[in-house]
Amino acid sequence: MKNNKFDVVGKRVVPIDVKEKAMGTAEYVTDMKLPGMLYGKILRSPYAHANILSIDTSEAKKIPGVKAVITFEDTPKIPFGTGCGRNDWYILAKDKVRFVGDEVAAVAAIDEETAEKALELIHVEYEELPVVLTPKDAIKKGAPIIHEDCPDNIAYHTEVERGDVDKAFKDADLVVKGTYSTSQAYQAYLEPKAAVAQWDAYGKLTMWLPVQVPMKCRIVYAKALGLDPGRLRVIKPYMGGGFGAKFEYMAHLICAELARHTGKPVKVVNTRREDFIAGNPRVPMEISIELALKKDGRFIGKKVYTLAGNGGRTVYGPPIASTTCYRIDALYDFQNVRSKADLLYTNTAPTGCMRGFGNSQMITTFEQLLDRAAEKLDIDPIEIRLKNAYKDGDVNLHGWELNTCGLAECLEKARNMSDWEKKYGKKRQKGRLKKGIGIASTMHVSGNRAFFKPFDGASSLIRIGEEGQVTLVHGECDMGQGQDTAFAQIACEALGARYEDFSVATVDTQISSLGCGSFSTRGTTLGGQGAIAAAKDAKGKILEAAGEILERPAKELDASNGIIFEKETGKEVLTFAEAAKHYVFEHGGMPVTGVGYWKPPTVVPKNYYGNCSPVYPYGAHIAEVEVDEETGRVDVVNYWAVHDVGRVINPTLLEGQLEGGIVQGIGWALTEDMIYDEKGVLQNDNFLDYRIPGSNDVPRIYTDFVESNDPNGPFGAKGIGEPALNPVAAAVSNAIYDAIGVRFYEIPITPEKILKGLAEKEKNKNSNTAANKNSYLYQRRL
Amino acid sequence: MKNNKFDVVGKRVVPIDVKEKAMGTAEYVTDMKLPGMLYGKILRSPYAHANILSIDTSEAKKIPGVKAVITFEDTPKIPFGTGCGRNDWYILAKDKVRFVGDEVAAVAAIDEETAEKALELIHVEYEELPVVLTPKDAIKKGAPIIHEDCPDNIAYHTEVERGDVDKAFKDADLVVKGTYSTSQAYQAYLEPKAAVAQWDAYGKLTMWLPVQVPMKCRIVYAKALGLDPGRLRVIKPYMGGGFGAKFEYMAHLICAELARHTGKPVKVVNTRREDFIAGNPRVPMEISIELALKKDGRFIGKKVYTLAGNGGRTVYGPPIASTTCYRIDALYDFQNVRSKADLLYTNTAPTGCMRGFGNSQMITTFEQLLDRAAEKLDIDPIEIRLKNAYKDGDVNLHGWELNTCGLAECLEKARNMSDWEKKYGKKRQKGRLKKGIGIASTMHVSGNRAFFKPFDGASSLIRIGEEGQVTLVHGECDMGQGQDTAFAQIACEALGARYEDFSVATVDTQISSLGCGSFSTRGTTLGGQGAIAAAKDAKGKILEAAGEILERPAKELDASNGIIFEKETGKEVLTFAEAAKHYVFEHGGMPVTGVGYWKPPTVVPKNYYGNCSPVYPYGAHIAEVEVDEETGRVDVVNYWAVHDVGRVINPTLLEGQLEGGIVQGIGWALTEDMIYDEKGVLQNDNFLDYRIPGSNDVPRIYTDFVESNDPNGPFGAKGIGEPALNPVAAAVSNAIYDAIGVRFYEIPITPEKILKGLAEKEKNKNSNTAANKNSYLYQRRL
Repeated sequence: MKNNKFDVVGKRVVPIDVKEKAMGTAEYVTDMKLPGMLYGKILRSPYAHANILSIDTSEAKKIPGVKAVITFEDTPKIPFGTGCGRNDWYILAKDKVRFVGDEVAAVAAIDEETAEKALELIHVEYEELPVVLTPKDAIKKGAPIIHEDCPDNIAYHTEVERGDVDKAFKDADLVVKGTYSTSQAYQAYLEPKAAVAQWDAYGKLTMWLPVQVPMKCRIVYAKALGLDPGRLRVIKPYMGGGFGAKFEYMAHLICAELARHTGKPVKVVNTRREDFIAGNPRVPMEISIELALKKDGRFIGKKVYTLAGNGGRTVYGPPIASTTCYRIDALYDFQNVRSKADLLYTNTAPTGCMRGFGNSQMITTFEQLLDRAAEKLDIDPIEIRLKNAYKDGDVNLHGWELNTCGLAECLEKARNMSDWEKKYGKKRQKGRLKKGIGIASTMHVSGNRAFFKPFDGASSLIRIGEEGQVTLVHGECDMGQGQDTAFAQIACEALGARYEDFSVATVDTQISSLGCGSFSTRGTTLGGQGAIAAAKDAKGKILEAAGEILERPAKELDASNGIIFEKETGKEVLTFAEAAKHYVFEHGGMPVTGVGYWKPPTVVPKNYYGNCSPVYPYGAHIAEVEVDEETGRVDVVNYWAVHDVGRVINPTLLEGQLEGGIVQGIGWALTEDMIYDEKGVLQNDNFLDYRIPGSNDVPRIYTDFVESNDPNGPFGAKGIGEPALNPVAAAVSNAIYDAIGVRFYEIPITPEKILKGLAEKEKNKNSNTAANKNSYLYQRRL
Repeated sequence: MKNNKFDVVGKRVVPIDVKEKAMGTAEYVTDMKLPGMLYGKILRSPYAHANILSIDTSEAKKIPGVKAVITFEDTPKIPFGTGCGRNDWYILAKDKVRFVGDEVAAVAAIDEETAEKALELIHVEYEELPVVLTPKDAIKKGAPIIHEDCPDNIAYHTEVERGDVDKAFKDADLVVKGTYSTSQAYQAYLEPKAAVAQWDAYGKLTMWLPVQVPMKCRIVYAKALGLDPGRLRVIKPYMGGGFGAKFEYMAHLICAELARHTGKPVKVVNTRREDFIAGNPRVPMEISIELALKKDGRFIGKKVYTLAGNGGRTVYGPPIASTTCYRIDALYDFQNVRSKADLLYTNTAPTGCMRGFGNSQMITTFEQLLDRAAEKLDIDPIEIRLKNAYKDGDVNLHGWELNTCGLAECLEKARNMSDWEKKYGKKRQKGRLKKGIGIASTMHVSGNRAFFKPFDGASSLIRIGEEGQVTLVHGECDMGQGQDTAFAQIACEALGARYEDFSVATVDTQISSLGCGSFSTRGTTLGGQGAIAAAKDAKGKILEAAGEILERPAKELDASNGIIFEKETGKEVLTFAEAAKHYVFEHGGMPVTGVGYWKPPTVVPKNYYGNCSPVYPYGAHIAEVEVDEETGRVDVVNYWAVHDVGRVINPTLLEGQLEGGIVQGIGWALTEDMIYDEKGVLQNDNFLDYRIPGSNDVPRIYTDFVESNDPNGPFGAKGIGEPALNPVAAAVSNAIYDAIGVRFYEIPITPEKILKGLAEKEKNKNSNTAANKNSYLYQRRL
């Protein structure tokens, strides 16, 4: 029967939604047009910090075609938040604005032009207030207060400690320290943030939202709107990218309010500028870190202080800041750790999730610092990583159970693929172009009970129709990364159906499983297990039906690739479709229905202690760069990435995700930063001024995978989404050092910084002063 | 806990989709707009009968914006049909056209205007053929042959016989005979026929179709398109009426072909004229009937010959014609019956289903004839009906098991309500306005194994989310009559949930149950039972979850109206939502999932013998008319209708359906007929010339219901859709006779016919010749 271990898993099958997308017929929220639909537009603050003295909407309301003009006064006035400790959201600004782009009023009209015209006729009187833009300034005594109930501007503070950190640092042979900054990057998804909302006769609200977390949106939005969450239905159509940006968002709620006021469906779509100034970009951080090592390179302690920028209100800053304090402790065994983090309100766009959460910032920081320790100890960067890497079956200091950890294998594969030995530390140059190579490790969670606590797990429903056609209903969110295809492959394999008979239902809280959402690189692992559970249930029924037709026990039969066969002989006895038709016709038209769920063996950590993820993906990245010493331009020329993904479900999608993560990481490493002027006005609010990598910036990328076959993964699989990006900036930075001998402490490493670094290096060549005032390293007993 | 027997059943709840419809935001197929969508238009034959000599599409293809121009040659060329014995359909005409409106070619373009312009540039050379328009002409020797493989034009012939008919007619005290014609009526639904089609990467086709039978469409369309039915997904969005017209339809397939040729989604929407000339109107019939009676009014035999018009190709003419032969035999006990039917091809629009199927034509016929027998025997029309009416538990001559039959009760209630005794047979007139009253009985099936044989039954799936919100997924089709609301009420009652927590999923073959469809007045009965089955399964799980929370056996608990209570004491212990949340969170996000099905205790009849419907609805209608002897205008002034519906699920919807049926019946009785000229061109192809009743034509309608609580109905319910219309024309005709003493043998009874009838009556007042050449009655031993 079967020639290979798997029929569908591991195959480069055609993605389930490829033609709709390729042909442009896939309907995104931005494409939607419901009968009678109105268009909503939002009046945004031009000031980064100001009191609202008055709003006059009377003129705007007079324009023909304008159906509603709303301000805070027209909303439920319920303070709410994303569940991260701070209820600092209102639908439309209450009495002050806290960033340029803050939502002041909104209009629904028969078309976008009319709505925009009405915006111009809303008269708002502001009283400008002093502005504070960076966490460093915001934490200073006497800084302008952004939220009155938070006079120190500290939106969140946390601390984690394990072991005897002070003793470890006393016992250290070497301590390396540094303060590293990471920029506020924009997620640069193709589809801007959008919503369509419509109310029904019972006060039930339906929202079409391109979001990663429909369930979380339901809970939060219901509260904000003063609704029973059961009254809110969220449908997630095709989605043009998320990268962490598509969580709860104010415009969704404004859209719902406009729909409530007009009794019509309303669509709100951000312009790209709105998406830049009032989206939820990555939390910018300054991380001060100290690492204690023995002279053989073994880590014995780590101290961290994270200073993070929250922007004007709280999105997911708190768990992102806290993530910097402990997640990396499952990459290497630090033995003793102490971390603190402060999250500061600032007068910028509210910051939130971006691929890697806080772990990207921390891995960027640590993996740069680590290279300095390796250099000092004269240990090869790969060797020092191998020495401290976790292994299969380890349990880390926070109680995380690392059933499988392919980090060492990834490091070794990457070393071989890249010809590391021949390249690292070797002066390689042609004139002004200097070549260098750098490495960084990565890990992440796949699922996270620490982030979303009410429950964890995933479930699915599978229906098999009378012709053998299979529909998978799950509750997780394909953001465009191919999640639905992966689920179909996993479920198909477990069911023994034909992949071409599969379809995947649109996520819709009316019918789908309660999925926690697409975050924490959890989709494939959790959702895949849920899909397997439903498939097993459905397969049992199909085999029962086959047994009925054949008049023999179902347990003698099995199915594979749409064929039912005898277990003993492998003889094909029936098609899947024949068994399905029999079942459906014998059951009054009822499709074969399988349901199932999987609960991960994780816990809600207490004081950060407890296994929060069922599996932990690992990886190693090596970047090779060419630095132009004349222009400062850094060209990433080759890139090698090897990931422990547990099991490859679809090589094409995996490579796609990984390559995407690498390119996004290169952007963060070299160009991407949101730059505000002193009044808090974003200077690069468009794709001309905010530069993401173009096709010329993409290196040759070589990928490979380690299949550690984790017992908690579906067919052994772990995730790839976030670990793909986490190490990129550090690998590039380390490669730049290898090329030009200058260390950088701030990403993006722009040509300007390269030139400045080279100039400082030249100046200090014969001096003993530290090269960089932000960094130092010292020896004790070495 | 409960004050009434039912919480939701029998209540006038707000229909589940009322606001979307009232506000105009409900999206119908005609409203749809998919990204990249093209618009399809069909070139239709201007001739009723002609050979196609050539088609030149070259000019049309040149127009900018035209994406495809297709003819028969571009289609799969597979002959197919609706499964009624004749495979006389091709997608686009093969080599001849058989009615004005026959589909010759089609265009897909970027907008409707461009498509229409292209149609004008398709050059077709026709050779005209002689035309035959009525079954009477078509059956004649030497009539033009419409389908070459059917030289006698007889598309279908059938016969049924039970008992000793010849002996019965010999034993009769009275035989009444007559030949009655019923017109070709247009179903006059609001939403014209429409389709949207889109193909995916795997050659899977998705079609959005406002149809009554998505499953049947899948089977038939897959065959026509050369597809595995598993590759065809049908979604049925909101639907603007069906009345039997929305079954398989050529334009749907043309739409699919245009989508296949262009690789884009395509929408095809009929204009109203296209809907008139090339829709599938009611099968016109001429029924010759003889009834044998004993002098006490008891029936002892019946003979029927039906001559029916099929139009240019076969839609559902065969089962409609056969229905005239035997369905009425479950209304009265005829004891001995012999029926024959012939269905003739004609050069008109292909005829098909309309509310009542063939039973409307037969009831119209018989209930008029019966009044003549009653008059001759000097028995009150209600008395003669009561004498022959079936009763609970009877089994008719075809083996139909009439568990419950409320006919007698309906007749008596209607008599009382209408003040029949005071009105019938009394000369009541004011000048030229003559008043009269007339009665007719009705019955129908609710489900029909004789029509759709592969299987019967219904099933549902219920999902209960974490907030207690309930979604019902069924496979039956709400055409606008409120089926989804009825299902929600039934399922809600069985589940013990709150009605306001209910929603009903759009029917979609990707996920819904395999529903047989909306026909044979089967929805409430079959679908309702399927909903109950799923609700019971889900309720068990909810009560288990409640038991878990409360740490007590689930069997001590019950639920009603969203509250879980102790069975013994009635004490409320938990909400439905609390139990649901517990279940979902404990099961990895899996909603409470209930599935269930119901298989009716029916059989596929053999030679028309065997119980084909689980329940049989009955009713009695009384019409009171005022006839203007000067203008011929008939005004139906009062109308009483009493139906045995088994159980009232929703009085408002039931009244709505019944009133709609009555008004539609009045149109058929008095004005509605599709009139062709001698070349086969429809003369009244619009709502100005084809007159359906307006608000001024609607009488005061009084309705009441008998609740016979059928053991096979959900909470006892039977259907109402078709029996509501069946008796109207006869009741009106009988009332006209009571008013002016003229009998009519042809509907519609137009003012012209009234005046002609009055004139003939005047002429024959002192003569002994028969008043109408089409009818005669004779006595034997009376």
